[in-house]
Amino acid sequence: MSDPQIEAKDLLAQLAANLATHLDILGPRGLDKEIYKYSLIPAGKLFRPSLCALAYMEETKNYELKKQLSERKDIALFASFLEMHHVYTLIHDDLPAMDNDDYRRGRESSHKKFNEWKALLTGDGLNILSFHLLSHMNSPIALKLLKIATRCTGSNGLIYGQYLDLSSMMNDSFKNVRQTHLLKTARLIQLALVGGQALAKNTIDGTTKEYWKFGESIGLVFQFLDDLDDLREENSHEQEINPWKKYKDQCHVELFKHLNRCQSFLDTRPVIKQYIERYLNKNIDVLKENQDFYLKNGFQEQELLKIFASFNLTSHH
Amino acid sequence: MSDPQIEAKDLLAQLAANLATHLDILGPRGLDKEIYKYSLIPAGKLFRPSLCALAYMEETKNYELKKQLSERKDIALFASFLEMHHVYTLIHDDLPAMDNDDYRRGRESSHKKFNEWKALLTGDGLNILSFHLLSHMNSPIALKLLKIATRCTGSNGLIYGQYLDLSSMMNDSFKNVRQTHLLKTARLIQLALVGGQALAKNTIDGTTKEYWKFGESIGLVFQFLDDLDDLREENSHEQEINPWKKYKDQCHVELFKHLNRCQSFLDTRPVIKQYIERYLNKNIDVLKENQDFYLKNGFQEQELLKIFASFNLTSHH
Repeated sequence: MSDPQIEAKDLLAQLAANLATHLDILGPRGLDKEIYKYSLIPAGKLFRPSLCALAYMEETKNYELKKQLSERKDIALFASFLEMHHVYTLIHDDLPAMDNDDYRRGRESSHKKFNEWKALLTGDGLNILSFHLLSHMNSPIALKLLKIATRCTGSNGLIYGQYLDLSSMMNDSFKNVRQTHLLKTARLIQLALVGGQALAKNTIDGTTKEYWKFGESIGLVFQFLDDLDDLREENSHEQEINPWKKYKDQCHVELFKHLNRCQSFLDTRPVIKQYIERYLNKNIDVLKENQDFYLKNGFQEQELLKIFASFNLTSHH
Repeated sequence: MSDPQIEAKDLLAQLAANLATHLDILGPRGLDKEIYKYSLIPAGKLFRPSLCALAYMEETKNYELKKQLSERKDIALFASFLEMHHVYTLIHDDLPAMDNDDYRRGRESSHKKFNEWKALLTGDGLNILSFHLLSHMNSPIALKLLKIATRCTGSNGLIYGQYLDLSSMMNDSFKNVRQTHLLKTARLIQLALVGGQALAKNTIDGTTKEYWKFGESIGLVFQFLDDLDDLREENSHEQEINPWKKYKDQCHVELFKHLNRCQSFLDTRPVIKQYIERYLNKNIDVLKENQDFYLKNGFQEQELLKIFASFNLTSHH
């Protein structure tokens, strides 16, 4: 039997449609509605909701996209929860008091388009709306998922990652870099995978733990690749604090360690594997195009070839 | 049989102790811990948690403070949820992009004491931590309460009230004033009362609706009295946008209408009544002390006497 296939663009379209519906049905009805809409739609690549939905379908062994992700189902609510929560963190991150970014996804950031207090309130509103979506779930583990979700996203999770980042403690040691990436990036990805898996069986068990560990590894892989990409940023401050600048060898080791850890998990999860491979291939294409930049900036050709080769998960069989 | 008595200071002490414990057990363990602690402790008058706890004891007909409010119980978690959530709104409200207040409860506001991004993140963290507390409840109606809570506090509740306030649409009409007060002030008070009542019976029923309506009225009463107090603010902008300035007659009518609506509810709720009476009496004392100010600012003596008299709930029997 051949592996099941899920087209990334079909998945994206379904999740984006659900997100719009959930915002429309459960979101604001007042004049602030347009700010929420502007911030959420058009959606980005919906990375977290996609992983969540794929985990769900992988565990139910049912890959009928529209049926499995119909807007009324708990999994659809959980996927939209992830994106709303993620977008609230982006809106607040972009504020002048935080990263002070005027642009997001190729458009003006919310506070530039509207104003600061409106962006601040919209972030708060999306934060709360994300949990409102969870309250509409019917699963017997809904409250348990709320507990995990608020732990992953809260002051011992994502928010503490932001604290370490902004306080520049992140760069005091490689251990802190790793901790920041774990909290700020991996936790929400872990939550996405765990939520999808657990909702498939309506229980939290040993398999949930496998997804948790995989999410940790894939989250770190993505963040270290993102950092590698960010090395080409023109902003000199961003350059200076990039972990590949200060801890290149340790970044290499960490990247490969976690890529390797993903292998056996992915071998039995075909649709997640397809998605991750496509994602990594896009990354490698960009890096290859910019090979000259990296060679000029202290990377050895061998190091680069090793990174490029590692992305091809299939070759590890 | 004489009415049960609950000393406001004993209630406050118990709720404050629970709040500190919940922050300690379920809150941040990192270096940001001190910002959370500074923002939450020492607690204010714990108005919302107090109403919540009193509603719970009123409905269980058990007034043993320490036993009823021991920190592990759902009602104790819900009371702390209310305060954490309230304090997150205060931290964000005080930010320069919002009301730009340097002081709060007689001390520097969180962003003045620490800095803006730390205050912003701490607000976000408290918002999430408040819902984390709800996830620790055991009640069969925990998820239903999450649904009501996120509706009251979200973009169709408290947050939209803040939007109306900051966009200065609040003062376009008395209808808007009323709507803003309802969303920004009453909703969290309604949630406090409804949460306490519903947790006493582990069900949401007709009595819940009575608490909801009472919360609406008492919330509006308190906000209009607060506005009356704020008239003496020296900030001329605050003065200008005060509803008693522009809509004095309508404020009078609204205040009395809702005071009257509270009467029959309170007649059968002795400990809530005691608490509200004490609260109103403190308000009246301050207003009486400043009678001259109000007389100089367009109020008639008769109007003032009517307000003073209305505060004495017992006299309405």
